[in-house]
Amino acid sequence: MVRVLVNISYQGSQFLGFQIQDNGRTVQQQFEKILKRMHKRHVRIHPTSRTDRGVHAFEQYFHFDSELNISADQWQYAMNRALPDDVYVNSVAFVDESFHCRYDCVGKTYRYKIYQSAHKDPFECGLKAYVYDNLDFDKMIQAAQLFIGTHDFTGFCSQKTEVESKVRTLYESRIEKTTYGFDYVVTGSGFLYNMVRVLVAFLIGVGKGKYNPESVPQLLEEKNRNKVPFTAPAEGLYLEHIYLSPQSLMNDFGENIKIHRKKSTQNR
Amino acid sequence: MVRVLVNISYQGSQFLGFQIQDNGRTVQQQFEKILKRMHKRHVRIHPTSRTDRGVHAFEQYFHFDSELNISADQWQYAMNRALPDDVYVNSVAFVDESFHCRYDCVGKTYRYKIYQSAHKDPFECGLKAYVYDNLDFDKMIQAAQLFIGTHDFTGFCSQKTEVESKVRTLYESRIEKTTYGFDYVVTGSGFLYNMVRVLVAFLIGVGKGKYNPESVPQLLEEKNRNKVPFTAPAEGLYLEHIYLSPQSLMNDFGENIKIHRKKSTQNR
Repeated sequence: MVRVLVNISYQGSQFLGFQIQDNGRTVQQQFEKILKRMHKRHVRIHPTSRTDRGVHAFEQYFHFDSELNISADQWQYAMNRALPDDVYVNSVAFVDESFHCRYDCVGKTYRYKIYQSAHKDPFECGLKAYVYDNLDFDKMIQAAQLFIGTHDFTGFCSQKTEVESKVRTLYESRIEKTTYGFDYVVTGSGFLYNMVRVLVAFLIGVGKGKYNPESVPQLLEEKNRNKVPFTAPAEGLYLEHIYLSPQSLMNDFGENIKIHRKKSTQNR
Repeated sequence: MVRVLVNISYQGSQFLGFQIQDNGRTVQQQFEKILKRMHKRHVRIHPTSRTDRGVHAFEQYFHFDSELNISADQWQYAMNRALPDDVYVNSVAFVDESFHCRYDCVGKTYRYKIYQSAHKDPFECGLKAYVYDNLDFDKMIQAAQLFIGTHDFTGFCSQKTEVESKVRTLYESRIEKTTYGFDYVVTGSGFLYNMVRVLVAFLIGVGKGKYNPESVPQLLEEKNRNKVPFTAPAEGLYLEHIYLSPQSLMNDFGENIKIHRKKSTQNR
């Protein structure tokens, strides 16, 4: 048996999300269908992250175990030949059997894309979120920075989030001005359910003058989602980069950062 | 009764085309549903052009007759409020009752978008066609120019085309180099079924060295579609501009161009 690590991209508009469902088109379904045909048995894939309906990925990883004797290039070729046009295998590698996509992931970068215009653009439909209003970017830039560090994000995630600890570390959190709007770029140890989309909705609120950047520490402290009730739509959200080792994260953000490790013998 | 002229854009990926069908999502269906609700009766819309499944429009027009007393701005607002995100009303105007979108259209511009890359890009899926090969652009530019003028395009359209005359005039036919590929831009008096997509497939063939630019006059002369058997996919095709008066066409292409008029008392 070899453990195969697959780096993929997908446009999420026509997927009901990553995770397989009883009905409907998902990314996991596309791959498991191909792998079943190749292995003559069900092969389960394990992603670093399960993206929601309509969310895109510039970079996402999954792994699976295979008894087939196929080179990395051949794996890439075989999967791309069989995949639909909205999902693509960027590369394939073989990894140690102790490696696990979910538990070895120590960080992720998301990018959220917004365009601003007097009119909605049907060609951005599904790919960027739309904001009509003028926004105060200086205040948004200021507010975004205040999320960097280790915080309890209870006030900035879905109330349906069922995890023990809502403490996460953000290594970067910044607004990038684009020609017709802005991107919000955020790298963290992990993200709670809807967390990036709630942060974006809050930052847009700051840009519109509904919130002050100065309120960020207090909102984090209060842990009350009702104070930040909006969620930006899925269509603007892109999984951009996955950190699969503490070293790669330290290369980008410095040796002294706090690393959260999910890895444990119990949950392998 | 007033005749209302509507200028729209749409992303075609999620439409089965413009024209209404028994089953499935079409552009016409979206508008007639809204107009029926507003008028409490069926209102038929008349487009300049019926685009195929997956074909986009930067600019498309239709007209309809209404007894409602609504301003142009209010029409635009009401329709945009009710429309899905992949179709948008750019403007609304009132026109004389002798005006007819189909018969007053004297020219159309199409743009066909191709990207070239070592790898397919899932984010271009549905929006641009993909070509892996290197292409000889000089030869493509040369070949494209040879289609300008009045020709019988029997050899460059679907064999299912059922029209009396396959003679059309092209006012421009050119390759526009882009960062990661090229656009083919073509303006003509009218286009036969699949004509732009057959021209694009031929020009790609020229770029690959399968055809010589010099063969264009002979292929037009032979009127044999089997000599040019390929059709480029719908996803790269955009209706870009509609000419609704001979004057607008002459403004862009000179006073001496040949104007084809569909207008006649019989077929109104």
